[in-house]
Amino acid sequence: MKIKAFAFAMTAAAVLTATAGGPKYVFLFVGDGMSTPQRMVADEFSRKSGKGPLAMNSLTYQAVTRTCSANSLITDSAAASTAMACGEKTYNGAIGVDAERKPVYSCAAAAHEAGRKVGIITTVTLTHATPAGFYAHRANRGEMYGIAIDLVNSGFEFFAGGGLDSKYKDKKAPEFSKYGHAYRYAESQGYKIVRTKEEFMALKPADGKVLTRFTDGALENAIDANPDQPTLAEIVAKGIEMLDGPQGFFIMAEGGRIDWAGHANDAATNLREVLALDDAVKVALAFLDRHPAETLVVVTGDHETGGMSMGFAGTGYALYMERLAGQTMSVGRFEHQVGKLYGKRTDVSFDEVKPIIEKAFGLKFEGDGKRDPMVVSRAELDEIKAAFDHDAEFHKAKIEENKAYDGARRYLLGGACRTVVSHKAGIGWSSGAHTAMPVITSAKGFGAELFCGFIENTDIARKIKLLYSK
Amino acid sequence: MKIKAFAFAMTAAAVLTATAGGPKYVFLFVGDGMSTPQRMVADEFSRKSGKGPLAMNSLTYQAVTRTCSANSLITDSAAASTAMACGEKTYNGAIGVDAERKPVYSCAAAAHEAGRKVGIITTVTLTHATPAGFYAHRANRGEMYGIAIDLVNSGFEFFAGGGLDSKYKDKKAPEFSKYGHAYRYAESQGYKIVRTKEEFMALKPADGKVLTRFTDGALENAIDANPDQPTLAEIVAKGIEMLDGPQGFFIMAEGGRIDWAGHANDAATNLREVLALDDAVKVALAFLDRHPAETLVVVTGDHETGGMSMGFAGTGYALYMERLAGQTMSVGRFEHQVGKLYGKRTDVSFDEVKPIIEKAFGLKFEGDGKRDPMVVSRAELDEIKAAFDHDAEFHKAKIEENKAYDGARRYLLGGACRTVVSHKAGIGWSSGAHTAMPVITSAKGFGAELFCGFIENTDIARKIKLLYSK
Repeated sequence: MKIKAFAFAMTAAAVLTATAGGPKYVFLFVGDGMSTPQRMVADEFSRKSGKGPLAMNSLTYQAVTRTCSANSLITDSAAASTAMACGEKTYNGAIGVDAERKPVYSCAAAAHEAGRKVGIITTVTLTHATPAGFYAHRANRGEMYGIAIDLVNSGFEFFAGGGLDSKYKDKKAPEFSKYGHAYRYAESQGYKIVRTKEEFMALKPADGKVLTRFTDGALENAIDANPDQPTLAEIVAKGIEMLDGPQGFFIMAEGGRIDWAGHANDAATNLREVLALDDAVKVALAFLDRHPAETLVVVTGDHETGGMSMGFAGTGYALYMERLAGQTMSVGRFEHQVGKLYGKRTDVSFDEVKPIIEKAFGLKFEGDGKRDPMVVSRAELDEIKAAFDHDAEFHKAKIEENKAYDGARRYLLGGACRTVVSHKAGIGWSSGAHTAMPVITSAKGFGAELFCGFIENTDIARKIKLLYSK
Repeated sequence: MKIKAFAFAMTAAAVLTATAGGPKYVFLFVGDGMSTPQRMVADEFSRKSGKGPLAMNSLTYQAVTRTCSANSLITDSAAASTAMACGEKTYNGAIGVDAERKPVYSCAAAAHEAGRKVGIITTVTLTHATPAGFYAHRANRGEMYGIAIDLVNSGFEFFAGGGLDSKYKDKKAPEFSKYGHAYRYAESQGYKIVRTKEEFMALKPADGKVLTRFTDGALENAIDANPDQPTLAEIVAKGIEMLDGPQGFFIMAEGGRIDWAGHANDAATNLREVLALDDAVKVALAFLDRHPAETLVVVTGDHETGGMSMGFAGTGYALYMERLAGQTMSVGRFEHQVGKLYGKRTDVSFDEVKPIIEKAFGLKFEGDGKRDPMVVSRAELDEIKAAFDHDAEFHKAKIEENKAYDGARRYLLGGACRTVVSHKAGIGWSSGAHTAMPVITSAKGFGAELFCGFIENTDIARKIKLLYSK
């Protein structure tokens, strides 16, 4: 015990010394829609695959983090981002403005002001709510063009992710007449626009400020791996390369599609997104190992999505994380594939769809369910078949332009299949939306001891700003 | 920042000094079936009631705690207790024995060996899995008589809760011929058997060792408040009074019925149990305030129950914790009341049951649902009425001794009503059993800094033992 206490006192002493200089390097990782269930499902899956627990679950300090916004116990990503980034509770939908719509400034801006270079990284669009909270000030997250302009005007050195939203030349936006085409405006302000992975991987610090445009939407899901796009870990590694220098840096990196897979209650896609974020965290932890006295790594989430749980009535006290391993694509990708099969046809049979289901979800329609748990049971088959029948009728109505179906319904087959997979694994969901479950904020390195206790999401920004304010 | 870092260094130095003497006072609170959702639902309910956040959510350090047992990702309370108490992962069902069925010893035993007096407190039976893990060594949690004998043989000074299980004179138990009636054996070993609240509240340290027998089952749910039984907070306060002295003490106090309310997916009953546990935590924190350098308070759970979540598809991004306030009794108590109404009758009408539902759950069958959210909607009425119809038929069959119903079905009305209440509040459930969600271990005081990071439930015992081993 004496040794442990001594080591602890030493850590505190080290903090005392290092704090006087402020943190040279800060990594803030945000899993959108990532709370404890998402981290633990990915963790248990990773253990089961022989790869051990998540790196993000190895950090020294943990703070249970309340996520409510100023006007709702259940936050949206905009209010959550404003809270985490700027330290202010605001209304759902607000980006970098407080409840009175006055601008509030982020810890990224504080870092920039303190001389650090700043990188904003995400797997979704760079103007999406989570990244936007770190540089933009808009009363409504839907003001995509304005957010893009704020991005450029931030002067932050490295923006990498999907790209600006498709509204980059929104002529209806009030500021369009002033700034024009947002990418061209970015170029005029010294940003190099990077369109391909090859070009991105070849970037050198001498290239200056960077804005990616791999797409005008989000990067692909990790489970649907797109070889033409860098992974989140590759983007973070490149960010370090581009931003490192005597002045230090602040990097915010978001796993943005964890949330989308949560909304879709798509467990396998969800956990692959968490694993992709964890790979990026590993890059930061390797950097921390090289710069232990100067680096802070923080991992958090903005809210929980889906009311995910590891335990489902149907599987009792057993969980079978390995049953998620056979799913090879997201529900969205599956629906796209089935959509291609349908095309203009109205006579697609269930037998034609079965092999796509088997390939996508790892389910089996033949075999002995007692020996192979992935064989669908009678009840599961009924669920899947009912969804197929619904979709066939729905599709026929759409082709025949039966307005009675318009907008009121959607394809159900992908949802039915992912529910069967979730339940076979023992995963339950209570919602298709966000929940008020707290998230875990984990920290390691310089100032990490500030991240403990039960905190508010606003404390994340406040603690990081405190480190810069010294 | 300098001040903060300095204060931190001071804390570490204080730890260094104090650790050398070992912790004089340890409180370990266990919420059975209490993970983050249960703590947060109660926390938000408490805030909404104007009483502020939970005391247990104010502790300095947090550790995310993995609960899996040796043979399952989803633990039962026996394996969880053995892990938390003794520091060993074992199979579900095992009490104080490892996976090879060899006895393992608890941190309570370590405290006793180090000269501390020991109190074991619970709201359920004293021989239930969670308390048993701290003093018993049995291959199977069902060995109630043997567990009772181990209780007496532990020599721990204070056992307070429901009582021994009704198996206290289980003539079929292998050791019955040796020890006989378990309460009499306890008396022979110097335990004072306490049967009433009055007697309990009048206990003085000079009364020596204590074993309560308020009932042979569990104490009543907090929501069904029984004035003839002490609250958990009162029991902990009495435990302090009985055990305090120059040698110090170790107190384990369990909120045992949180789990049962989780199995029942009964949100209002669940949160009242958490609040009752929190009241007991407050007693310990007040003690800590009086003995800050010598006291450790730890609050944890053994596993999550119910896959509870704060977010339900039907309420979107809104939560209405206040809608749980009108429920005045547990589902169990409600079923008991309806059962009395039924008796031998087979002609009970829905109109007769309605007022009981209204009183029990705070639901209303008349009124404008747009103005009063507790008025049941058409769909909710249909659910409740369908359950009533089922129960009426079921009850009739039981009265008429129609064997076709025997054991196969149960009354559904209480379940339907509590589901309506949960959903009105925005609470979802994924399971009627335990889940693998991690729990939060919170700590304050002497050695509390050991409780951070992602830990295993076994680390709780190991860290506490480490403090005693110095």
